[in-house]
Amino acid sequence: LKASPARPGQKSIGSNCKGTKLILKTPKGTRDYHPPEMTVRRKVFDKILDVFHMHGAVEIETPVFELKEVLTGKYGEDSKLIYDLEDQGGEILSLRYDLTVPFARYVAQNRIGNISRYHIARVYRRDNPAMTKGRYREFYQCDFDIAGSYDQMLPDAECVQVIHQVLSSLDLGDFVIKVNHRKLLDGVFGACGVPSDKFRPICSAVDKLDKSPWSEVRREMVDEKGLEADVADRIGEYVKLNGKQDMLDALKSDERLKNNEDAQAAIKELELLLHYTSLLECDASLLLDMSLARGLDYYTGVIYEAILKENQNGEDADSGPTSKKIKKKQEGEEEDEEGGAVGSVAGGGRYDNLVGMFDAKKRTVPCVGVSFGIERLFTIQERKIRQQGIKIRSSCTSVLVVGAGKGMLEPRLALCALLHKSGIRAETSRKMNPKFLGQLQHAEEHGIPVVVGVGESEVQEGVVNVRCTATRQETQVPRVQLVAHLQQLLPTLEKL
Amino acid sequence: LKASPARPGQKSIGSNCKGTKLILKTPKGTRDYHPPEMTVRRKVFDKILDVFHMHGAVEIETPVFELKEVLTGKYGEDSKLIYDLEDQGGEILSLRYDLTVPFARYVAQNRIGNISRYHIARVYRRDNPAMTKGRYREFYQCDFDIAGSYDQMLPDAECVQVIHQVLSSLDLGDFVIKVNHRKLLDGVFGACGVPSDKFRPICSAVDKLDKSPWSEVRREMVDEKGLEADVADRIGEYVKLNGKQDMLDALKSDERLKNNEDAQAAIKELELLLHYTSLLECDASLLLDMSLARGLDYYTGVIYEAILKENQNGEDADSGPTSKKIKKKQEGEEEDEEGGAVGSVAGGGRYDNLVGMFDAKKRTVPCVGVSFGIERLFTIQERKIRQQGIKIRSSCTSVLVVGAGKGMLEPRLALCALLHKSGIRAETSRKMNPKFLGQLQHAEEHGIPVVVGVGESEVQEGVVNVRCTATRQETQVPRVQLVAHLQQLLPTLEKL
Repeated sequence: LKASPARPGQKSIGSNCKGTKLILKTPKGTRDYHPPEMTVRRKVFDKILDVFHMHGAVEIETPVFELKEVLTGKYGEDSKLIYDLEDQGGEILSLRYDLTVPFARYVAQNRIGNISRYHIARVYRRDNPAMTKGRYREFYQCDFDIAGSYDQMLPDAECVQVIHQVLSSLDLGDFVIKVNHRKLLDGVFGACGVPSDKFRPICSAVDKLDKSPWSEVRREMVDEKGLEADVADRIGEYVKLNGKQDMLDALKSDERLKNNEDAQAAIKELELLLHYTSLLECDASLLLDMSLARGLDYYTGVIYEAILKENQNGEDADSGPTSKKIKKKQEGEEEDEEGGAVGSVAGGGRYDNLVGMFDAKKRTVPCVGVSFGIERLFTIQERKIRQQGIKIRSSCTSVLVVGAGKGMLEPRLALCALLHKSGIRAETSRKMNPKFLGQLQHAEEHGIPVVVGVGESEVQEGVVNVRCTATRQETQVPRVQLVAHLQQLLPTLEKL
Repeated sequence: LKASPARPGQKSIGSNCKGTKLILKTPKGTRDYHPPEMTVRRKVFDKILDVFHMHGAVEIETPVFELKEVLTGKYGEDSKLIYDLEDQGGEILSLRYDLTVPFARYVAQNRIGNISRYHIARVYRRDNPAMTKGRYREFYQCDFDIAGSYDQMLPDAECVQVIHQVLSSLDLGDFVIKVNHRKLLDGVFGACGVPSDKFRPICSAVDKLDKSPWSEVRREMVDEKGLEADVADRIGEYVKLNGKQDMLDALKSDERLKNNEDAQAAIKELELLLHYTSLLECDASLLLDMSLARGLDYYTGVIYEAILKENQNGEDADSGPTSKKIKKKQEGEEEDEEGGAVGSVAGGGRYDNLVGMFDAKKRTVPCVGVSFGIERLFTIQERKIRQQGIKIRSSCTSVLVVGAGKGMLEPRLALCALLHKSGIRAETSRKMNPKFLGQLQHAEEHGIPVVVGVGESEVQEGVVNVRCTATRQETQVPRVQLVAHLQQLLPTLEKL
C-alpha cells in the first residue's frame, strides 16, 4: 500500500489523447479525505460521540437535499449561498445548508414532542472557501440538540456542558465559551433607543464585532442602518462588557435596563445558567460577552460560541500579528454559521420558534442546540500531526502472513482463512511469490504488530514462526495453537 | 424521550396561517432515518467494517458532487439518471452516481499505484424508487476495492471472500454468489457469430436475464439489436449454463470455444478463482453462472453478484408466485447497479481501464471491487425487527440519576458531573422536580440498566441508592464509592 500524499495537488491535465481537456480536481471548496486523515477524523468523531452518548442522545439522519421551500425564509441573506439542484422535471430541491432546519422539519413532520438527538453530516454553502483554515463549501457539522419543554436553562446548561466536554476531550488547548442572550441584546437595543424593527439588523451589525473594530460596526449602524449616532454610542458602551456574575450585577443595577423586562428576564436566565454550569463543573471557560450576537435570525434565547485561544503548537489561529484582536475575515467569509471568527469551533443557542414554522397550527417545540465545526477541528489536528511528524496507521491489520521461499501461496491463504475465522485481522501479499524481506518491510512500514511466517519446512512440521515486529523476536508455534497464541499476544502488542 | 414512529407518514399540510402551502415531506425517493433505524444501521456498518479491516483496507472520502465531466461517459445510458446541480455561476457539478468513478478519479489524481480502500457513502440516482424494497434515490453504498498490479485472481478471490464474510456475518440466511467473466461472455459472443461492435449491447441484453425470460431477451437481441436468429439461439445455449469446475470442463472442450483465446483465458482465470476461493473457504455459496452480465460497461474481467435466496422470515423477496424465477421489475427500475434483481445485495467485478480514462497518458491501474447495497440490507433487518417485535435501544445511557422528593436538582446535577468525569454515561431529568415514579418508568422504558437515587436523607448521610432496573434490587452506597461501585456493576449489566 503506497501512502497517498497528505496534500494532493489538484492536477489540470492539458489534453488527453483524444484531444479533450480533462480537469482532474475536486469541485471548488471541496476536498478528498485520504486514509491518514480519515483515521484522524474517525478518532475525533468517536470522542464527540462519547460525549453525545453521555447525554442520552439518539442519532437521526435526514436526506442531503430538502425541498427548496423547506429552506426558504430560514437563513435571511445567507440564502444566496444555498446550492440548488437543477430542475430535471420533478421536485425543486436544494442541498441542506445546516442540520438545524432539517431537524426542525423532522420534529414537525413526525410530531415529536421531545428528543435529544445528534446528527453528524456534511452541509453545503456556496461561500468563499479558505481551505487552509478549514473553511470549505462542503463541510461536516456535528450537531447536538435538545427539543422539548423542560425547566428553564437546564437544557441550555447541558449544551454548554457538551461544548466543555467535547473540547476538553479533544485536547485542543485553552478555549473560551462566550455566552450571551438574544433577549438581553434586544433589551439593550430597546433601552438605548433602537426602534424594534431594527433589532435584527442591529444585531447582525454587533455580530461583526468578532472580526471588525467597533468604529467600523458603529459606522454600519449609523451610515447603513440609519441609527442615531448617540444611540449607537450607547450600544457601544454595552457591547464592551464581559464577565460572569459581576457583569450581571452591573446590568441588574444599570439605570437604563432596570425597567426593561426583556433584559431583566434574560439576566435571571443567565444567572441560572451560571449556577447550573457551576454545578456541572463546566463554567471555568465560560465568559458572558455582550458582543456575541450570532449570525442567524432564528435564535430566541441563550447563544454561545466556543473559541480556541490559540493553536496548541504556539501557532496562532491567524498568521502574523494584527492590530485587531482577531484578523478581519476576507470578503464573502462573513456568513459562516458554525462560528464566525477564525478560531471559533462550536456555536449554537436556543431557537424556540423554528419548529413552529413547519406546523400548520403553529404548534412549536422549544429547542436548544450546539453545532461543532468539525472541519476546523480536523485542520488543527492535522497541522499538529504534520508538525509533530507523527506517523498515523490508517489500516488496523494485526497479522501479516508471509512466505519464505517459493510456493507458499497456498499455506498463506489457508492461514489467513484460519485467522479470519477467529476474527483476527490478517492479510497476506497478493503476489504468488513475494520477496521475503519485502514482506517484512511491509509489516514494519505499516506498523503491523505480528508477522506469521511459513516456509517449506514449517509446512512439513506443522508449525509457523510468529515474529513480533517491534522486538523482531521470533517464536515457533504449532499451527494448531496459532490462534490461541495470537489471541494472547495481540491485546498487549496492539496497545503499544 | 418519545419514540418516533417507525414509518412516518409524510404530511402535506393544506395551508398555514399565512395561507402559503407548506409541504412537509422529504424529497421523492428519500427518507429520514429514525433513532432505532440508525442503531440497526450502525450495527450493520460495524459488521461490514470489521470485514473490510480484516483485509487491511483503509478508508477514503470524496465530495458528494464531482465536476460533471468526471462522470460523463462512464455510465452509458444510465447517465440520464444523474442529478445535476443548478448552474449558479461557477463549476458545473453533478451528484455522484456511484463510488467507483470517484474512486478512479481519486487514484488517477493522486497518482496512487496501489491501495485497498473502503468508502461508505450515499449515492444519487433519479430512478423510479420502490422504497418498501429498499430502492431509493439517495442510498448508501459500501464499497471495497483493490487497486494495483497483483498476481492473477488473488485480489478477485479476496473480493469474493469479502462478500462471503460480510453476508455470513450479517446472518441474512442463505445466499448465492454468482460469478461470470466478461471475457468469457465476449468469447462466447464471438464464437457464436456476434460482430465485435455488438458485444456490449448484446451483453446488456444478457444482463436482463435476471428479470426477463430468455424469449424476451432473444427478441431484444434479434428485433432491437439486429442479431441473426441462429446467432441468438447459439447464445441461448450458453447462457443457460451454470455450475463450478464441471461447467468450466464443459466449456474447455466445447467445439466452438476451443480456439477462442478470450474464452480460454477467462476459463483459466475462473479455474484459478475456484481454487483460491476454496483455499479461502468461501466457495460454498459460489456459483458460476453464464447468464450474469452486470449492467455497467466498465467491467473487464471477473464479475459477481450476491443474491439472498429468500428473506429469513420465510417471506420471499417478492410477493406472490410468478412464472419467472424472479419477478420482472417495474419499468424504470432496470438501472440499479448494486444488484439488478430483487434479492441482490452486492455486486462488482474487475475494471482495469477506468483509472486510465482519467490519465492524460492513459496510465492505468487495474482495479477490482465490490459494492454492498446497504439500503436493501437495512430494509431486510428492519422487517425482521418489526416482525419479531424486538425493542431497540437507541440511546446507550448507563445510569439515570433520579431525585426522591423536591429540591433534588442540585445533587442530581452534581452526581451527573461526577459520573461523567469517570466516563460513565449518566443522565438526569431536565425538570426541576420530576415525579419519582415517572423517572423510574423512564429508566425501564429506555432500558437504562442502573438508577442512582438521592433524597434529602441520602444527601445528609452522604449516600446514594443504586437500583438495578432489571431486578429492582436496591443497594445503599456511600457517595465516595459510587464510581467504583458502578464501574464494577455496569459491565455485567450492560451485557444483558
